[in-house]
Order: sequence, then structure tokens, then C-alpha cells
Amino acid sequence: MNNLSDTPVPDPGSNAEKKESKQSSALKKTSRYRSRSLSASSTDSFSSASYTGSSDDGDDVPPREKVQKNSKGSSDFCVRNINQNAFGRREIEIAEQEMPGIMALRKRAADDKPLKDAKIVGCTHINAQTAVLIETLIDLGASVRWAACNIYSTQNEVAAALAEANIPIFAWRGETEEDFWWCIDRCVNAENWQPNMILDDGGDATHLMLKKYPTMFKLVKGIVEESVTGVHRLYQLSKAGKLTVPAMNVNDSVTKTKFDNLYSCKESILDSLKRSTDVMFGGKQVVVCGYGDVGKGCAQALKGQGCIVYITEIDPICALQASMDGFRVVKLNEVIRNVDIVVTATGNKNVVVREHMDKMKSGCIVCNMGHSNTEIDVNSLRTPDLTWEKVRSQVDHIIWPEGKYIILLAEGRLVNLSCSSIPSFAVSITSATQALALIELFNAPPGRYKSDVYLLPKKMDEYVASLHLPTFDAHLTELTDEQAKYMGLNKAGPFKPNYYRY
Amino acid sequence: MNNLSDTPVPDPGSNAEKKESKQSSALKKTSRYRSRSLSASSTDSFSSASYTGSSDDGDDVPPREKVQKNSKGSSDFCVRNINQNAFGRREIEIAEQEMPGIMALRKRAADDKPLKDAKIVGCTHINAQTAVLIETLIDLGASVRWAACNIYSTQNEVAAALAEANIPIFAWRGETEEDFWWCIDRCVNAENWQPNMILDDGGDATHLMLKKYPTMFKLVKGIVEESVTGVHRLYQLSKAGKLTVPAMNVNDSVTKTKFDNLYSCKESILDSLKRSTDVMFGGKQVVVCGYGDVGKGCAQALKGQGCIVYITEIDPICALQASMDGFRVVKLNEVIRNVDIVVTATGNKNVVVREHMDKMKSGCIVCNMGHSNTEIDVNSLRTPDLTWEKVRSQVDHIIWPEGKYIILLAEGRLVNLSCSSIPSFAVSITSATQALALIELFNAPPGRYKSDVYLLPKKMDEYVASLHLPTFDAHLTELTDEQAKYMGLNKAGPFKPNYYRY
Amino acid sequence: MNNLSDTPVPDPGSNAEKKESKQSSALKKTSRYRSRSLSASSTDSFSSASYTGSSDDGDDVPPREKVQKNSKGSSDFCVRNINQNAFGRREIEIAEQEMPGIMALRKRAADDKPLKDAKIVGCTHINAQTAVLIETLIDLGASVRWAACNIYSTQNEVAAALAEANIPIFAWRGETEEDFWWCIDRCVNAENWQPNMILDDGGDATHLMLKKYPTMFKLVKGIVEESVTGVHRLYQLSKAGKLTVPAMNVNDSVTKTKFDNLYSCKESILDSLKRSTDVMFGGKQVVVCGYGDVGKGCAQALKGQGCIVYITEIDPICALQASMDGFRVVKLNEVIRNVDIVVTATGNKNVVVREHMDKMKSGCIVCNMGHSNTEIDVNSLRTPDLTWEKVRSQVDHIIWPEGKYIILLAEGRLVNLSCSSIPSFAVSITSATQALALIELFNAPPGRYKSDVYLLPKKMDEYVASLHLPTFDAHLTELTDEQAKYMGLNKAGPFKPNYYRY
Amino acid sequence: MNNLSDTPVPDPGSNAEKKESKQSSALKKTSRYRSRSLSASSTDSFSSASYTGSSDDGDDVPPREKVQKNSKGSSDFCVRNINQNAFGRREIEIAEQEMPGIMALRKRAADDKPLKDAKIVGCTHINAQTAVLIETLIDLGASVRWAACNIYSTQNEVAAALAEANIPIFAWRGETEEDFWWCIDRCVNAENWQPNMILDDGGDATHLMLKKYPTMFKLVKGIVEESVTGVHRLYQLSKAGKLTVPAMNVNDSVTKTKFDNLYSCKESILDSLKRSTDVMFGGKQVVVCGYGDVGKGCAQALKGQGCIVYITEIDPICALQASMDGFRVVKLNEVIRNVDIVVTATGNKNVVVREHMDKMKSGCIVCNMGHSNTEIDVNSLRTPDLTWEKVRSQVDHIIWPEGKYIILLAEGRLVNLSCSSIPSFAVSITSATQALALIELFNAPPGRYKSDVYLLPKKMDEYVASLHLPTFDAHLTELTDEQAKYMGLNKAGPFKPNYYRY
Repeated sequence: MNNLSDTPVPDPGSNAEKKESKQSSALKKTSRYRSRSLSASSTDSFSSASYTGSSDDGDDVPPREKVQKNSKGSSDFCVRNINQNAFGRREIEIAEQEMPGIMALRKRAADDKPLKDAKIVGCTHINAQTAVLIETLIDLGASVRWAACNIYSTQNEVAAALAEANIPIFAWRGETEEDFWWCIDRCVNAENWQPNMILDDGGDATHLMLKKYPTMFKLVKGIVEESVTGVHRLYQLSKAGKLTVPAMNVNDSVTKTKFDNLYSCKESILDSLKRSTDVMFGGKQVVVCGYGDVGKGCAQALKGQGCIVYITEIDPICALQASMDGFRVVKLNEVIRNVDIVVTATGNKNVVVREHMDKMKSGCIVCNMGHSNTEIDVNSLRTPDLTWEKVRSQVDHIIWPEGKYIILLAEGRLVNLSCSSIPSFAVSITSATQALALIELFNAPPGRYKSDVYLLPKKMDEYVASLHLPTFDAHLTELTDEQAKYMGLNKAGPFKPNYYRY
Repeated sequence: MNNLSDTPVPDPGSNAEKKESKQSSALKKTSRYRSRSLSASSTDSFSSASYTGSSDDGDDVPPREKVQKNSKGSSDFCVRNINQNAFGRREIEIAEQEMPGIMALRKRAADDKPLKDAKIVGCTHINAQTAVLIETLIDLGASVRWAACNIYSTQNEVAAALAEANIPIFAWRGETEEDFWWCIDRCVNAENWQPNMILDDGGDATHLMLKKYPTMFKLVKGIVEESVTGVHRLYQLSKAGKLTVPAMNVNDSVTKTKFDNLYSCKESILDSLKRSTDVMFGGKQVVVCGYGDVGKGCAQALKGQGCIVYITEIDPICALQASMDGFRVVKLNEVIRNVDIVVTATGNKNVVVREHMDKMKSGCIVCNMGHSNTEIDVNSLRTPDLTWEKVRSQVDHIIWPEGKYIILLAEGRLVNLSCSSIPSFAVSITSATQALALIELFNAPPGRYKSDVYLLPKKMDEYVASLHLPTFDAHLTELTDEQAKYMGLNKAGPFKPNYYRY
Repeated sequence: MNNLSDTPVPDPGSNAEKKESKQSSALKKTSRYRSRSLSASSTDSFSSASYTGSSDDGDDVPPREKVQKNSKGSSDFCVRNINQNAFGRREIEIAEQEMPGIMALRKRAADDKPLKDAKIVGCTHINAQTAVLIETLIDLGASVRWAACNIYSTQNEVAAALAEANIPIFAWRGETEEDFWWCIDRCVNAENWQPNMILDDGGDATHLMLKKYPTMFKLVKGIVEESVTGVHRLYQLSKAGKLTVPAMNVNDSVTKTKFDNLYSCKESILDSLKRSTDVMFGGKQVVVCGYGDVGKGCAQALKGQGCIVYITEIDPICALQASMDGFRVVKLNEVIRNVDIVVTATGNKNVVVREHMDKMKSGCIVCNMGHSNTEIDVNSLRTPDLTWEKVRSQVDHIIWPEGKYIILLAEGRLVNLSCSSIPSFAVSITSATQALALIELFNAPPGRYKSDVYLLPKKMDEYVASLHLPTFDAHLTELTDEQAKYMGLNKAGPFKPNYYRY
Repeated sequence: MNNLSDTPVPDPGSNAEKKESKQSSALKKTSRYRSRSLSASSTDSFSSASYTGSSDDGDDVPPREKVQKNSKGSSDFCVRNINQNAFGRREIEIAEQEMPGIMALRKRAADDKPLKDAKIVGCTHINAQTAVLIETLIDLGASVRWAACNIYSTQNEVAAALAEANIPIFAWRGETEEDFWWCIDRCVNAENWQPNMILDDGGDATHLMLKKYPTMFKLVKGIVEESVTGVHRLYQLSKAGKLTVPAMNVNDSVTKTKFDNLYSCKESILDSLKRSTDVMFGGKQVVVCGYGDVGKGCAQALKGQGCIVYITEIDPICALQASMDGFRVVKLNEVIRNVDIVVTATGNKNVVVREHMDKMKSGCIVCNMGHSNTEIDVNSLRTPDLTWEKVRSQVDHIIWPEGKYIILLAEGRLVNLSCSSIPSFAVSITSATQALALIELFNAPPGRYKSDVYLLPKKMDEYVASLHLPTFDAHLTELTDEQAKYMGLNKAGPFKPNYYRY
């Protein structure tokens, strides 16, 4: 899940973030570390639905070497520990309560079984929330096989719960890269099971099938992809003429972008900063780099809590919006010596570099809400003159020789993924969007979609939104016949032209 | 200038609003009126750049029957009174100070004369702000002839100032419909002057030329149209295969929509309500019908001043945005008995009807920020049982037999045009957009534009924005070469894909 | 009505503002004026309930020289023109609808006649809103005689309406200073009428009675005073041992301060700036001098509309509040070159001086929301090198030789009194407070109040608030017996200790 | 530390909360508990400066039975484990960086030694932040002996660090009630050390000294008390004529109230809710019971994040403020079926009772930001028909037979103490206030203070504020001589009358 879904993404490498993480770890060892107590007040204070978990599963045998069976006798899965399934099931039940939209879809469409005969290879994060999606797809008639799209993010208990429910799932926290591809392969290449749909997050399942099982790939009816990276790869495939099936870019659907970017970031920036640093917001000077949807959400939330916010921008239109919204638009160097907090939200690389960090005042907090781990040049901090001190699990003090220090969150990775949790409600919207995209592609009459990349039809975007209105007890008005005629609209929608900006 | 530029507009009639106004006047006489003092506190308290003016020009001779000459001896114009030109010139000078963007364009492009040889027929509102545009076009090399697009909105002094500056202008406040067409005709059909560009606001100049001078029309290189109605007519012409020249829809450019809708309305809703009713906002319950850009701006401003705001919506996506932004989404009937203020911003017709108004509580204020004069069914109030009492020039109390009254602003027409002023800054953006569209169409290499309706190229939209940043002392960041490459962007823009929603 | 009621007021002169106004007029003539059209868009765009009025009453005979009778044959009054009474009555009726609190008090207490036998000399502004107060006092049993507290502010039509209703009223717009004192004298010194209460706004009635009719003064049971200046004079009298009757300082009651300062100013600052200058708020840089209640209200409103607001303060506590609320606290010189708008709200003198104004950028708007006309050193601008140009009735451009100009509002007087209107709701609260203070003093058992200055008892403050809750459809919770006991409170209040800060 | 410092506090019992906690534990066992995994996403996610700590100190020997010596050979202390001192010292160092105000005081006053010869008995929470206060007092010349005011809140590492620094400290997490009094006794009754000042939080040291060592008590020069409860007890002593020394109520100083209530709560309500429940705020309906400083802070923060907020109030003035600020004022029963979150902030008891909770919708979050643990009638939920399920360490699901559940935070205790952290900045203000109060009382000339309870002199309140301005880079303006004279103020303050409400 990337905050910046509307940004051109240049790095098509499938495992960019994973590899870079490893590099970081390697580099770390070259700098001096000062040990420090994790006592009372500095105890790690974050939780994350996606990226943390029980650190100790009490079991060191690699999952691929274990033989496990669920209570029904099946062993068509590979998880850390099938015995954790009850705990995972409870997590899924709680998530169900918090994901009203996808649950409403499950209920409304269960009778129709719109995914009957769909055979879906899924490759996403595995957690309680995606589990709700997976089980919804099954309720709608699909058969699925599922792997993780990230080697760190699997909630082992949830994977166990899915396995116990007879869902062929291949995922655990802490996979090796070899494990990673093995798991996907086990989903794609199953006996007596020819997949006809792909639900991908990052493009790895698509990539593997296309490369390794090209014949099988041609039988696929459609691909649904939700990540910036995966969408970028699809457009490249399409440009290169190698995309032989229709694909749906759900990353740029209205509801997903607005929720995953503007609203989610508005909620999570405060949470991320508070949980990791206990900073008081009132009167703090903050610079937010970038005023796209993510930057807008961050700036609005921080201003609302009493911060004085500056914006940097490259795009004059966004800069004008920032100005009109009451933010000073500056170059980073104009304010870098004065600010208390730096937040990156550009989607670009090297937005905050060593030169900036050398100028920051002591105690300045630096974090990334934008793209991957590229925005802050963290590597430039791994030099012998600087001392790194880990004060909490996602919080490092980087100390200059003269005693000044800056507070780096999540080592420059996405701070809201590392230091806060993703609201189930936002995930519910994304999940409903994915399910509807699968239904649309699977059921589309021949010819509606060619071998290209499509945006979700606006009507479906509107349907996803309508699924989530009851949560707010929101009541839609209906057009009268006269009004619909006057507007030239169908009473059931879609209600806006495609270029409408919301 | 319509608030709702992104709404499909059904009514292509060229003079819809004008005609409807007349009908209203006729109907008025059938209801009972109670006379009332216009004493101290109820003195008309609004000003409007576009729609008000010195009511008494001390001269009752119809302009078309007068012979007037400016100080250079020219009589190629028709205005109310050429002697008012000094006053008008001063107005234009003040407007120039308040329109930094268009003035910057004038300065930057004056040497290049990008409109050299352009012969522009203009048909827009005539006021100090449009005068700045007109004189900018001339500075950029164009020759122009200009008429008013509305029979009420001309500032006579400004027209006189333009005439004095040897600009052929044909416009005065209070034209008859016959005058209206005569003025446009005088612009189109001039001796030794073959127009090659049209700048239109509402489509009337385009319409007249197409119908009356079809041969001349074919020699036009391009049309720039800024109104919802005019754009709608262009798309219809295009669909019908009758559009033989390229046209630029500047109504839907990013800067124009965001400024004319969201930001301008955010500023003007408070102003309109205060000037006309002196209402205190704190704690007032308000329902805003529609949560498009206009509704968003209104809701945000009203909430910011302490109102409790409810939203009605037909579109689930906008409804979800309203919910997430902290507004209850309701059907009008749920709250109509409790609200203190009703604001329409839907672009639709009959959104507030007699049935609603019968339920409102006494003192409820009703106004329209949306489209034309259709949203509130004002005619339904012109029945014998109700008494209309005009308490200020744009404020009527409609009194029910039992004594309850509602406060109707601007008789249901656009309240921000009638009861407040349009910030020069917003007009500056629109004007710069129009000028750039003219430059683009006039200078485009053959083949770039076909006989179709186009949106302004994003790069020009970005340029308009950049012209206005110095006002805010906003400093843009430039991409490094490395960053531009990483993002796959040209360092000079455009910076976003076309579907970007801002 | 002063915005800054909680500020020590140094200037005890009874007619300070009036005299200073005259001085300004005199000084004006020494600077050069450039004439300018008051054409369409620059037509005076303000209305004010209190301070404007029909400029032309069609009658040049001084009121004191005219013989007028109302329709019942009484001539115990002196107004501009008794024939305007119908218009004035309509104004009063409208004000009644907008002043629910005082009307509720009128209704609830009418049977009890708590002011039976009270003989009140009143000296306040005379407008529709104070007329509602006057007629309420009469409904509660009082007999009254009334004069104006300001020579400019009387609404002649309203005065006529009161006279027509047999209320002895002595007031017209444009009194001379001699007229002013004559009018008050006519109220105090009437045949067969010994006043026993004073309702004063500025202390002039108190002053006159004390000086001229000391014996009569000793028979007064109580004084109610609402202005900063009047309260200051009372405290001085008390200190000097000359106050021989109890007086109630309603200026510092909770509801009055919070409403007249924080909330009213929050509402009126935007309105004042818009009506006089049509400025767009988004992105404007503003410095607000002073962060008391007035400054807080202004800063909050301006920030809410997208301004970037800086604060200057002398008091570290208020400065810390400003910081925590998200405002930069600066010295004026740090930002004076960059700001677009300067608002004074300190209660002090010479806060903005010529040296500052010399540094302002062209087009900077300067206005005073604070105290009287002292905060901006306007006299320093009346030098031969500067040109004054009146562009609207309350708007002057002061032009420097090099062409730079600043926009001065209301010549440095209170801009919200000059350029906007006072919401009836705020006046309703003040009026209800005054009425209750009169009732309390008039009915207090002997000994409860000595010859000193008192604040309104908290319970009455709470009662005033409760009178205004129905406007908001607000529903109070009642303490259970158990809760009241636990809190040590009476269920009917008062609910807070006296030092509570709200 | 209580949020509601301005509320009359009825319960003078010294250990009210402690006792009530025990009762709760007892009651708990009577209801049915369902066990549940604490898996990945539900892992306890809170940290708290005051109430959490290293759960495992690796040592079960009761501190009073151990013999410990610090590195200098002293054993005049009693802590859990002296060996943890290095960790504690690091915590203190970090706290010093985050408490600029108290550190500035330390620096400015260190040369003067204003507390030379002061012998202070301290009884407060023991954590890194109070350690900074304790060491500041010593730097200012005092000798101290210190005990904990709460049996749960001591950070053992910090206590060890203080002991290592030769400070006689008697405190550990998990004291018995007997331990509690023993520790205080060890501070009061030391050899060769006659205390002359008391710094108390809750009144226990004062109580013990008064009861057990009345002769010693009479030699005390002053008491500084910061808690609601302690202040209440002092006023009772004073009323009963038993207070024989001057006492300073710092709980009601301006800076402390505004910061500990309005600003701290504005910051911590969002944090508390997010950390414990990961709730998404946008569009949530919330009722805040009480609109005092705490309620105002909560309501403002929640509205700022997109919640729809309702207020309940008993006081019409606060209710009117809520209305004007844009909140609906309702009775709890009007909205209880619809709200998503209930926050209590009244200072009262049984504000939310079983009857309300029976009506709440499933998933409703209930928490207390007000006073102690009285506001929510938690005991009414401990009935056999309801099932309690602990889902995180401070989060219980209370499940009704039909499946509905509510989410109760911190078992109804102060949620911001339990589920978030107290910003060091707020603590810095309180600490500086306490230190200044000690200095004032200790150095006051005889006669300035009698045996009564005093508020901090305003000038000192202003000084505390000024100590904290540099954090915000805030620059105070100084009065000119002319201005100071005009205002009748001393240029160094105090700047406001005592009744000023800020």
C-alpha cells in the first residue's frame, strides 16, 4: 500500500524495498551504535496491523520443512504454525466488524455468486483485513490460492486461520526471497487448478506467471492490480505489447486514491508522530514536502492540531492550492534551520538530503509519508562521524559530533505503515474496489475489455462508495425524473464526467 | 460566470436567465406587496463588481440614438456616456493593482506580441476587471471589438473608458434584447475588419456569427469559451458536426474550476450572507445542497465560522467525502424544519421546492450558490397567499399567512453575484487562462487542433498558476536532474498526468 | 460598545472619541486630497445597524427649534422628525425577531413587573436594538426617559417611533455638543419625575447628575454601566469616595465579554474587511496585534478563511496561548514588510506608527479592532508628503510619493463599528444583561450592595446565557440530586467558582 | 494529575482512587471473562510516562527488605533496584531536552540559589520528568527528601538514578499501602533534617506531617500543592482553622490550567483513542460530556479531525459557548443511540450510566477524560449477563447477551493517563510553576502570606509562560514608556487584572 498512488513510479524492480532494506541493515553495522535502555517511558509504543506481529512464534523450524495439517486433514497450505488459527480467527472476526463495506458486499452478492467459476491467484499482504477480502471472494463463488506480497508483513495467526478454513495459503512472516517466489509458485501452479484471474499487489504474481507459465497466463481473463508499482509495470507491459489480458488499475480509482491518500494520511500522520515521539503539536513548525493528496492530508491534520505548516512544491498548481489553503510555500532551505518536524510526501527521491539534515536544529523529527524509502537520503547519515542511537523500535536519534541530534522515524520508510495502523475502514474501501474489479473483469461480455489497462468504471467506484455510507448513517438523495432529465443523467448514476476532479 | 462549471448544463437557450428574469418581474405583480422603509439599518448593503452600478446616469437618451465622440475624434463605439471615462479609467487602474497574474502576463509577453494580427470579437461582461483583460490582449498585439454578454452587468464608466481609449466597444447597462444583438453584430460585422478569433462567455457571439455570417465564421481560427452554457453549446455543435473551428473550453481548466468554484465560493458565501442579512454564523444550522466544489467551499467556510452544516447529495462518492470531512449527509426533509440557512449548490433544478419552504421555520434564509436561477423554485412562492416584502435590495421576506416568513436572497439567483463581489484575484486567473487559450489557438501549428472542443493544455494551466504565485510570495522548488529523471518528468512540467484530480 | 472591555482604560475624558473625531476632520483639510469617482464597483458597501442612517431627512430645522407632537398629542420628546415613526417601528419589529433573549425575558417577567416603580434615566446609543431594550424595561414596569450617548449614532426613525409610543426620548443624529448635554438634562430633570435608576453607556448621565443635581443623585438606587470608559470612571469615583450609590459593571460579565469580544469580533473582522475592500483571504499574510479576546477572535476567523496569521503580544501568557494555538508570535518589525493586512486589537495607543507604515508594502490594509481610535497613529499620516484618496466611504488610500499606498479603514476608528454591523444576537445578550442588572439593583434587599462597583452575580450571568440557548435549540442537562451533592452545587446554579475562566 | 482542576472535588479521601481500583479488581472476578489472544494487531500499543514500566525487574525481594548502597556508599534511599540507575539517568537526560522551561529556570536561577537552606519534603509521581524538577530544586539550593504519591506510577529506573545521585528517595512501583506511608514517613522524619517546605501532590505528605508530627508541621514555611484533591483538602483545613502555614494552590494558576486541561487534552484525546482502538475519526459521531477546558480541548481536536461532535452541559454559559463554537448541545439520551464515541469530561460522577450503555450501538467507544474514575458507572457493567473481554491492555469489550458490545477504555479511568503519554512540555510548565511557588513562599517577607491558601501571584504565572516562549521562537513585544503609562501598567507586568479570563 503506497501513499502516493498518483505519482509516476520509476522503479519497476519487483523487490526494490525488500532489497533496499537489506542494504540498510548491512550499512548499519558500519556506524557506531550506542546502546540504550528500553525502559518504561521509551518502551516501543506502536502497533501496526500490517507490519508487526508476535515476535516469538516459539518455533524455529522453517515452514517449508514442516508437515502441518489442519483439523479437516488438509495440508494444501504453508504457514508458520497452524495451531495459531484460533487467535487469527478472532482477529478476522474483529476486522469484519470494522469493515462494513466489504461485509455489505458479501451479503448483497452472496446469492448471485458473481465469482462462480472464478479461480483467483492472490498475492497481497496477509492480515486480518485482507483475510476478510479473501473470504468474501470465496463467498461470492470464487476458488482462490493465496501468497504474500511482502516477506515481512504476514500476520502468522491470520494465515493459520485461513489455512484452517481450507484456504490454500502460502505465507509467513520472515520469508526468504526464495521462499517468497516458492509461495507464489505454489499458488499459480497447482494440480487440477487452472487460474483465470489474478489479484496482485506489486505485480509479482503477474510477473511470475507471465515469465514462467506463459501459456497459462494467456488463459487468464483479467488482472486486478492495486499498487503504484504494479500498475506501472502493467503500463510498461502494455506499451511493450506484452500484455495479453485486460487489467484493471484500481490504484487510481477515486475512492481508493482519496481514502488511501488524503483521508488515511490525514488520520495517520498525527498518530505516527505521537506514538513514536510523544511530540506536542501545538506551536510546532513543520515543513511538508509535497502538496499532493498525501501532503494535503498531512498539512490539514497538522494545522488542525496547532502546527505552523510550510509547504514545498514543484508544481505551480499544487503550490497555488497550498497558498490559497493558508500555507506558506517555501524552498526547503528557507525553513530547514527553524522547523521542528519534516514530513516528506512527494513520491520523489532525495528530497531531504544530508545537506538539509546538517542544518536542522537539534531534536528535529524527520519522517516519510510519501513513497517507499527513497525520499530521505538515509544512507547519507550512515557515516562514521554520526552516531545512531535506537531509542524506540522505529525511532533513531542520529547524533552529530557536536551533540546535535535529529530524530529519524522508521529509518526513512513509510512512517504510517511502521508507526501507526491502517484504519480498517480505508482497507474496506480498497478491498471492495478489488472485489468489484474482479467481478467486472470476470463477468464482462467479450469485447468490453481488450488487452489493456483500465480504470474502474465510475459506476463501480460509486457503488463502492455507496457500500460505505451506512457506516456514517448517511442518506443519499435521489434524483427526481425531472431532475435526471434536466441534468441528462441516469438516476442510478454515474453522476459525473470522467474528468471530474472531486 | 457560473459557480458550477463541471455540471452538465441542459438549457442551451441563449438568454435563458434574462428571459426568466422578465417572467419573474411579470409574476411579481400578481402577489401582494407590502411597502417598507429602506431606513438606516436596512439600507442596501451590497456591492458587486458585475451587477450593480450607478443607477442614475443622468441621461435618458438611448445610447443608440446618441452621437458621441471620444477625445481623439473616434465614434466607433456605443456606450451610455463617454464623459464618464475618467471615472472608469480610475476603476481600471485599481483593478490592475489587484490582478497581478494578468498584469505579469502583459509584461512578460508584451515584447513578443503573441497576438499580433489576431482580430478578436469579444463578448463578455464589461467591468473594470474584464477591461484589464481587453487591454492586455491589445498589448499582446491583438485588435479587438467588444460587446457585453449580459444586458444588466455593464459598468458604464468602464465602457466609456475603453471607448475613450479607442477600443470599439458596444455595451451599456440596461440594453434591450434588440440592443444586445445589435451590439454583438456591430462587433462582428465591421468594415475592413475580418475577425479571426472569438472570446465568448455564453456562446452568443459564436451563435450570431455562425447563423448570420457563416462564411465569415469559417475563417475564424479559434474560439475560447468560458461559461458552462457556452461550453455546452459548443459540445452540441461539435456533436452535430457543425463546429468548423477548434474551440477551447477554459471553463474546465484546473485553475479556473478550483478558483471560481472552491476558493471563490468559500470566500463569497460568508460575504453574501453577511452583507445581505447580517446573520451571526456561530451555532447556526445550515444545510448545503450539493457537495461538489461549490458545496465543499461553502460547507468548509460555514463550518469554519461555527455553523453546524448538513449536506445533501445524490452522488455516493461526494457523499462519502462529506461524511469523512465531518458533515452529516441527510435528505433535505430530515433537517428542513430545523435549519437556519439553506444553500443550494447542485447545478440542478427544483432542489428546494414549495413543499420544503412550507416546512421551514420562521426566519430561515434561503439562497442559491449553484446554477443560474433554477435551484430554488421561486415561482412556487408567487402565490396569492404569500406576501413578499423587499427589505433590502436583494433581500425579500416571503410571509406566510400565519406570520412565518423566510428570507429569500437575490430572488433565487446566484447570491454571490448579487450580494457580494467577485475577488479580482479569481478574475485574474480566469482572464489569464482566456488570454493563454487565445494565444495557444492563434499560434498553434496547423493540425494541432481540429474542429473540436479542447481543454487547455496542462502546461498552460500550470503557467497560469505560476503567474499568480508571486502574490503569495510563494517559492517553487525545482526538480534536480536526478529527480526529474527518476520521476520521468520534464523539469519545466507538465508535472501531472491528465487524470490527476488535484 | 468597545471591543476591549477587559483592558485598563486610561482616558477618562467623557467625550474623548467625539472630540478626537472633530480634530481629525480639522486635520484632514491640511493634507492633499485627490477626488475620485464613487462609481459602480466602489460604491459605499457597508451598512451598520448602529452608526449609519438616512443621510437626508429632508428637513434642516434644528430639532430643538421645532414643535412636534405625536399622534396622542404628547410633545415630551425631541427627535429629528416624528413623522418617520412608522419606518422606525418596522425596524424595531425586525430587531425583536432577531433578539430572542431579551424578548424571552420580556415575556417571562412581564407578569411580575420587577421594575414597577423604577424610574430610569437612560443614556445609550439609540437604534432599533436598544429600542427593544427600552420597551422591554417599560413592559417590566419601569418608566423611563432616554437620551443618546453619542452624537452620531442615533437612528432618527427609531427615535421617532419611540416618541410616537409616548416614550420621552431626546436624541437625533448630528447633535452638537451643546445639544448632547441638553438632551441628557431633559431626561434627568423632568417635572414630577424623580429618577431612581441610571442605565449609562459612557458615564455621561451619571456625570451630569452627580455634578449638576447632587441631591437628586443621592436618591438613586443604582447605576448600571456597560462601557469600558464608564466603568473606569465609576472605579475612579469609588476610589475618590464620591460614589454614593451601588453600581453594576456589566461590561465585565462573562456573557458580555465573551460575546462582544471573542465571538462578535470573530464574526465581524471578516465582514469588515470584505465589505470595505473585497479582499480575498486565502493565502493572505496578516498580523494581529494583541491576543486578548478580540485578537483571539480575529486570528481564529482569519486563519479559518486561509490567512497566515502572525501575532504580536506583550503578555507572555497570551503569547504562549498564541503559540500553542498555532500562530507565530513576532515583533511587528519582523513581519511588517511582508504582511498584506494589519489588525490592531491591543487596547493600547500607537501600536502601529508611521515608522511601521513607511515599511509596509503597497496595498497593505490597516485597520483597528481594538480600542477607540488610538491604536493606529493616523495623525502621523496627515503630512504634506502623503496623499489621501477616499475610495469608498470608510476606505482611504494613503499614497506615498513613490506611488506605494496603504489602505486605511475607517480612519483608524473601530472598523467593525464602521464597516460592518453588530449582530442583533450580541446586542440581545448585552441588553438582557443590562435589564437583569437593573432588576437586581432595584430589588436588592437593603445592605446587599454598598456604594461600590459590582460585577453581575454569576447566577444572573448564567440566566442571561440560558435565555439565549433556545435560539440554538440547545438542551441543558440537569444535575441529579446525587450529582449536585457530589459536586457541592445547587442544582439551579451557580455552577462555577468566581475565578473560573471559561 | 487530574484533568479537571477547576471542579469542586468532593472526595477528600487520600487514597480514593487506589481503594476504588482494588474494589474494581474484586468485582471483576464476579463477571465472566473470555480469554483472547494478544496477537499481532492487538498487541498492547500504549505507552505512558506515568503508569507503565518495565514489568519485570528481575527481582522479587521487597525493597524494604533489601540492603542497597549507591556507588558513593550511601544507603539513604529505598528503591526497587539501584543497579538500574544508568537507564534511569538516560531517561532523565532525554526529559531534560524536552523540558526547556524548567531547564531555563535552572540555568537562570542557579547562581542566586533562591532555595538555599530550603529543606523540602516532596511527594509526587516519580518519573523522568519529575526527576528534572527534583534536581532543579537541588540546583537552586534546596535539600530534599522524596516519596511517591501513587503506588503504581513510579519509574523504578528513574528512582534508582536519583538514589545514585545521592538524593534520598523512597519509592517503587507496586508499593503496598503500608509501604506508601512508610516511604513518606522516611522523608518527613529524618535524622538531623528538619523540613521547612512541602511539595505535595494529593496532600498525603501534608496530612501525615500534620497528624503525626504536628510540632514539626508548625515549623514549615510553606506548602505547595498541585492536585485538585490536595487543594480541596487544604481549603477544608483552612476552613476548619487547622492550616497553620501558608499554602500555594498551583493547580489553579493560569498556565497550569490552560496547559494541563485545554491544550494537553486537545493533544491527548486523539492519541488515546488512536493508540487504543485505531479508530478512524473522519465522520464519527462523538458526544463529549462537559464543555469546560477539558471538554473544549477534546471537542476542538475531534472536530478538527472530522468528527461530528455533540456536547452535553449543565452550565448555560458553557452551553452557549459550545453553541457559538458550532456544537449541538444535547441531552445524552438524545444522541446516545447514534454516537460512535462517548467522552466524559465533567468532573462529576455517574455521567454515563448503565441505562445509557444499554442503548449504545454496537462498537461504541466509551472513555473518560474527566475526573478520577467516577464519570462512567463501570460497576454497573460488572453483572453476570455481560461478558468482559480484554482485547488490549487498556481495552475491554463489554458484550451484551444479544452480541452487541461496547469498547471501554482504561476501565473508565483517565484515558489520557492510561492510553497516551503526557507531553513533557506540559509537565515542564507545571514543574516550573511548582518551583516558583516554592521560591516565592520560601523567600516571602514575613507577613506577605498568612496561614491560608493562595493562588500563584500573576507575575509568576507570567514568568512561567515567558520561560517557555523560546521553545516556539516566540518574540515578545515590549511596552514603550508612553504605552505603559497610557495603560497604567508596569512594563515588566503583571499585564492583566486578576479576574482576566484569558
